[in-house]
Amino acid sequence: MATVDTPAGAEEDGGASDRAASPPGGSLPRLVDSTKLIGDPRDSAVVRASHRVYEHLVAMFAPGLIEAAFDLGAFVALADGPAGAAELAERLDADPLGVRVLLDGLSCYEIVYRESAPEGGHRYRLADGMAECLLPGGLYSLAGRIRYDRAIGWDAWRDLAQHVRHPARDDSGAYRANQLSAEDYESVARGINFWAPPIVEALAGLLTDTGWKEETPRSMLDVGCGTGIYSQLLLQRFKELTATGLDDPRIVPIAEEQAQRLNVGARFSPVSQDFFQQPWPGGQDLVLLVNIFHLQTADGAQELMHRARQAVREDGVVAIVDHIVDDDSEPHSPHNRFFRLFSASMLVTGGGDSFSLAEYDQWLERAGLCRTALVDTPMHRILLARLT
Amino acid sequence: MATVDTPAGAEEDGGASDRAASPPGGSLPRLVDSTKLIGDPRDSAVVRASHRVYEHLVAMFAPGLIEAAFDLGAFVALADGPAGAAELAERLDADPLGVRVLLDGLSCYEIVYRESAPEGGHRYRLADGMAECLLPGGLYSLAGRIRYDRAIGWDAWRDLAQHVRHPARDDSGAYRANQLSAEDYESVARGINFWAPPIVEALAGLLTDTGWKEETPRSMLDVGCGTGIYSQLLLQRFKELTATGLDDPRIVPIAEEQAQRLNVGARFSPVSQDFFQQPWPGGQDLVLLVNIFHLQTADGAQELMHRARQAVREDGVVAIVDHIVDDDSEPHSPHNRFFRLFSASMLVTGGGDSFSLAEYDQWLERAGLCRTALVDTPMHRILLARLT
Repeated sequence: MATVDTPAGAEEDGGASDRAASPPGGSLPRLVDSTKLIGDPRDSAVVRASHRVYEHLVAMFAPGLIEAAFDLGAFVALADGPAGAAELAERLDADPLGVRVLLDGLSCYEIVYRESAPEGGHRYRLADGMAECLLPGGLYSLAGRIRYDRAIGWDAWRDLAQHVRHPARDDSGAYRANQLSAEDYESVARGINFWAPPIVEALAGLLTDTGWKEETPRSMLDVGCGTGIYSQLLLQRFKELTATGLDDPRIVPIAEEQAQRLNVGARFSPVSQDFFQQPWPGGQDLVLLVNIFHLQTADGAQELMHRARQAVREDGVVAIVDHIVDDDSEPHSPHNRFFRLFSASMLVTGGGDSFSLAEYDQWLERAGLCRTALVDTPMHRILLARLT
Repeated sequence: MATVDTPAGAEEDGGASDRAASPPGGSLPRLVDSTKLIGDPRDSAVVRASHRVYEHLVAMFAPGLIEAAFDLGAFVALADGPAGAAELAERLDADPLGVRVLLDGLSCYEIVYRESAPEGGHRYRLADGMAECLLPGGLYSLAGRIRYDRAIGWDAWRDLAQHVRHPARDDSGAYRANQLSAEDYESVARGINFWAPPIVEALAGLLTDTGWKEETPRSMLDVGCGTGIYSQLLLQRFKELTATGLDDPRIVPIAEEQAQRLNVGARFSPVSQDFFQQPWPGGQDLVLLVNIFHLQTADGAQELMHRARQAVREDGVVAIVDHIVDDDSEPHSPHNRFFRLFSASMLVTGGGDSFSLAEYDQWLERAGLCRTALVDTPMHRILLARLT
């Protein structure tokens, strides 16, 4: 019988190993046993601080190991079933020691599990859900996000200091909206579909609360739709809903193809347009903007809000899904923490910000809209608004 | 009055914000609120896996932010006292938005605290212990470790796949011992002193258990002593102890200088030598090898063990402090996890490994030594051995 180095309940609760009595929001496994931080009390503040900072520095190991395995095709190979390091090394044309170290490292993040093999030695098995997550082609695959890291992430984060000195500015000296190339945007857009299911689950509930029913005909506009995943999951929920998606000409065919794949192609119309230059189709029951505001300058955000106001029906809903910092809520919540870190991600990609709830409220007010709901999802907040 | 975004108890317990009921070993704050991972159960395994892997990918943000602040001199500036983003931007010749984003990011890792300033707006304050940890020159400073990341860490981890394909080998095709350059070794050696205090605390306790007393004359040999911090802290404890340190000619002056700084220079003699080629001084009460075995091949490790046996007195102690993987203990403990990740760090720096307890026991036996203790410290294990 194979025995497995799997911490109890790891697959059910998201995989951390030391989650007994885990705090709200869960915890990541640590690399420092801080119960052993004993010694001279005069040293203890700096020694504790150094252990903590060191642990953040070596966090670089995680993307390094995951992306190396991706580049080598290790996840594709493991999707066929558990295998030992020597066997995988041969298949991947890599070194047996190198592959053993790689897989042992991935087991520390519980991306693979290390099991005693029936024939002796160890073998490695992909954790539940990892195949679709780490192979190209899956609806919720991170492959695009990994390609983005490979193409620009590592350089951008290593060189963050230069972006702090000189954020992107236009000829007039003003900060710029995000400068990600169409190619990198395509990679990222394909790689972040996984955010959608819990967000759409929460959004569908909110729409139902406002009176949406499965069988009532409704229209929605998905501004900067990317792959269209948010529209498409809503279309699966609301059978008489039709959606128009606006995005870059490079992205539209991807959105069209994915709508077919999800069997909602007949009710989903992606349109290639610059949504700052061309008019938006009006009379919408829902205007949805997911991860669009954080790409803008404050002026661009205000312009989007005016345009949303123009496109929505009198009794319609504007829904914004984004990294909305809310200092009045717990400032160290996973949300506020992630949103602030995401600002730095905008800085390295040439513009944008995680704006505050106060800023959103101001843009809404100036556009003749008012906020009716603010709901947390795993890594975003949903803001609903109506005409004032 | 300034109000502070400081989670209760953050400075006392190492700084995570959601540590209520924290598990043994503590937890790192999360960026995903996994309580909000709701939705279609068919999707849930892959969506959970994707959120989890994404969180590991964006772990790159942490070294990016810390090292950018280091490069810009932000920690030096904040060591003078709390300051606002605009004020710091002027002092650092950087952009106010860039600096605000940088500091907000560091506040997510609780390296700085974000406070309401008495004059309005926010100001940022270094967390307790961070000044000595993040400025060059402090005894437990990480500056050298950060310089190592800047020089080779980012490239090495981004290119991990090539090391997995082709680990460093010698002309005969055998794996090599670690290939870190003398310059990079110097940076690292200066940057990991912080590991020493809790390790020396535990080791001193173990030596006392074996009969060491403060006033008895004793001798010790510190093989690959680096800055000599382990010897020097022991010399502070045991007033009649004398220590000889062996290391590279580049490191010896650093060790000498630090011994003076710690007021133990008269009892500490660093010697420049290749400890594989030249004989070791014999008759030692203690032969100490800290973070030396993980740099070796298995053959090199065996050779070190024979040499340790030759150098130690009949009733003396060999103490090994290293990343000793112990699969018989909890395989997902912080120790085993860190040690396995550290193997990958050895792979990217040209050789070495985190060897298993079974391997250490075999080398000990062949050298005529036997293990008498194995003790956990925050990120290492201490193995004590005596003559068989």
